[in-house]
Amino acid sequence: MSLVVVGSVAFDAIETPFGKTDKIIGGAATYISLASSYFNNKVNLVAVVGGDFPKSDIKMLQGHGVNTAGLQIKENEKSFFWSGKYHNDMNSRDTLVTELNVLGTFDPIVPDEYQDCEYLMLGNLAPSVQSTVIKRLKKRPKLIVMDTMNFWMDVAMKDLEHTLSLVDVLSINDEEARQLSKEYSLVKAAKKIMAMGPKVLIIKKGEHGALLFNKDQVFFAPALPLEEVFDPTGAGDTFAGGFIGYLASTKDISFDNMKRGIIYGSAMASFCVEKFGVERIVDLSTAELESRVQQFVDLVQFEIRIG
Amino acid sequence: MSLVVVGSVAFDAIETPFGKTDKIIGGAATYISLASSYFNNKVNLVAVVGGDFPKSDIKMLQGHGVNTAGLQIKENEKSFFWSGKYHNDMNSRDTLVTELNVLGTFDPIVPDEYQDCEYLMLGNLAPSVQSTVIKRLKKRPKLIVMDTMNFWMDVAMKDLEHTLSLVDVLSINDEEARQLSKEYSLVKAAKKIMAMGPKVLIIKKGEHGALLFNKDQVFFAPALPLEEVFDPTGAGDTFAGGFIGYLASTKDISFDNMKRGIIYGSAMASFCVEKFGVERIVDLSTAELESRVQQFVDLVQFEIRIG
Repeated sequence: MSLVVVGSVAFDAIETPFGKTDKIIGGAATYISLASSYFNNKVNLVAVVGGDFPKSDIKMLQGHGVNTAGLQIKENEKSFFWSGKYHNDMNSRDTLVTELNVLGTFDPIVPDEYQDCEYLMLGNLAPSVQSTVIKRLKKRPKLIVMDTMNFWMDVAMKDLEHTLSLVDVLSINDEEARQLSKEYSLVKAAKKIMAMGPKVLIIKKGEHGALLFNKDQVFFAPALPLEEVFDPTGAGDTFAGGFIGYLASTKDISFDNMKRGIIYGSAMASFCVEKFGVERIVDLSTAELESRVQQFVDLVQFEIRIG
Repeated sequence: MSLVVVGSVAFDAIETPFGKTDKIIGGAATYISLASSYFNNKVNLVAVVGGDFPKSDIKMLQGHGVNTAGLQIKENEKSFFWSGKYHNDMNSRDTLVTELNVLGTFDPIVPDEYQDCEYLMLGNLAPSVQSTVIKRLKKRPKLIVMDTMNFWMDVAMKDLEHTLSLVDVLSINDEEARQLSKEYSLVKAAKKIMAMGPKVLIIKKGEHGALLFNKDQVFFAPALPLEEVFDPTGAGDTFAGGFIGYLASTKDISFDNMKRGIIYGSAMASFCVEKFGVERIVDLSTAELESRVQQFVDLVQFEIRIG
């Protein structure tokens, strides 16, 4: 198997009711790569950073088996920077700063050694950049998973529709699903969105879990009830990373295996929110991960004999 | 086993984006009794109505095995009446009319034949009325389950605290749990509320499912993703009725059986919201109920081999 991850590698500055950070490593592809690295020895990254991006952070990614052959470093430019402040309920946030910098002209390079890609994860990015990566792969991957956000629905809907028509799985949150489908009911929304291209749809509901739709099948994965959510930044990307990472490592894209992927993704995301940024997911042990997955099993396990 | 249900039997007038009703039968004890009647041949009702309450509705309840020996009929007074209008998202509503009428002076009568009560369900009512019923039972029931709402936290907190100290299980929604505990995190809220009396706490999250807490254990039951929620009125009471009805019929109050009770309650509630008022839950077949419970099983079922 070969897993390619595309997305932003960037700086974040985060403020929550529990404190604030300086510029720390962030970006969709960072979270996705780290999360999927717990399931795969090698994760092939496609991204761009500026000359200001610390070599130590790149080394940290490499230490997780992330292949940075597809990471462009534009020495004279600056990395993408996002800054946000979460409200007390942790469910809403204000964006304080968005500096596109290198991301404004991102032309993704797909190294030759990535051409055997079987699993492609398109992290949130301009949909035209996402479709460019698909085009630059000579052979279509076995599974293409895509994340996006409402911003692209507002400013690049045509591009988004095109990219949607090319992918197998779309992962978005409930608010985005409603905006994309113009339906309030998530069941109705799912039907409309699956008619736009993706055969499988994941709707993330944050602290309320996630839904997985496939034709007439639906699976629900809970979120772990936590005492405290410290910083939700990157939780959705970490979820996606756990999901694609698990699928790529097991080489099984059946609906039943996607259910397991959703549980692993949810487990990874539950770690992510426990500390600022990537702090909690840079150094997880196998025992920690297994014990967390067991908590998910226990959380929903019941036995009913019907009839 | 003997199940006693206390609560309002009343008139509702409901407006949703799908239409509106005249005065129809409503009230917590109505929904609870009907839902629990699918699991028990006999449900003993304690409630009060006015002379305006239709004999046909009382007959309908009796037809479901509801014992109305504890239903007072105050011929010269009027029944409790509530009228509300749901917003487009169906998650919020405005109360248009609340006429307490007979409920304002409700002095609950517990007939002698109810004295063998093993399972007691206290539907939403003034907490002082709820505790009066407990006091009037000569032998403490095996299990007392209580529902309440934020209104009583605002106007009768002392009474509510006293009643809470007497019950085994409390069933409230997430907003109410937060108000009662002054904690945003539902895990923290659960700890505080269980310290107030109930050994077991159910937190209902509407379309986001329900959590069951017991000491350090937690179980999560999803809500069924529905194409359309037609009328949410009574869903929480129907849930409680399915829960206590299942427990009473199986005579098992273990945590594992409570999990099953939550699933049956959720299944009953998923029917309730499909039509106005009690319309959908007055005439369910066993096959319908079993098939709905199977949908809940399928919705969360996955297999993971850990380690």
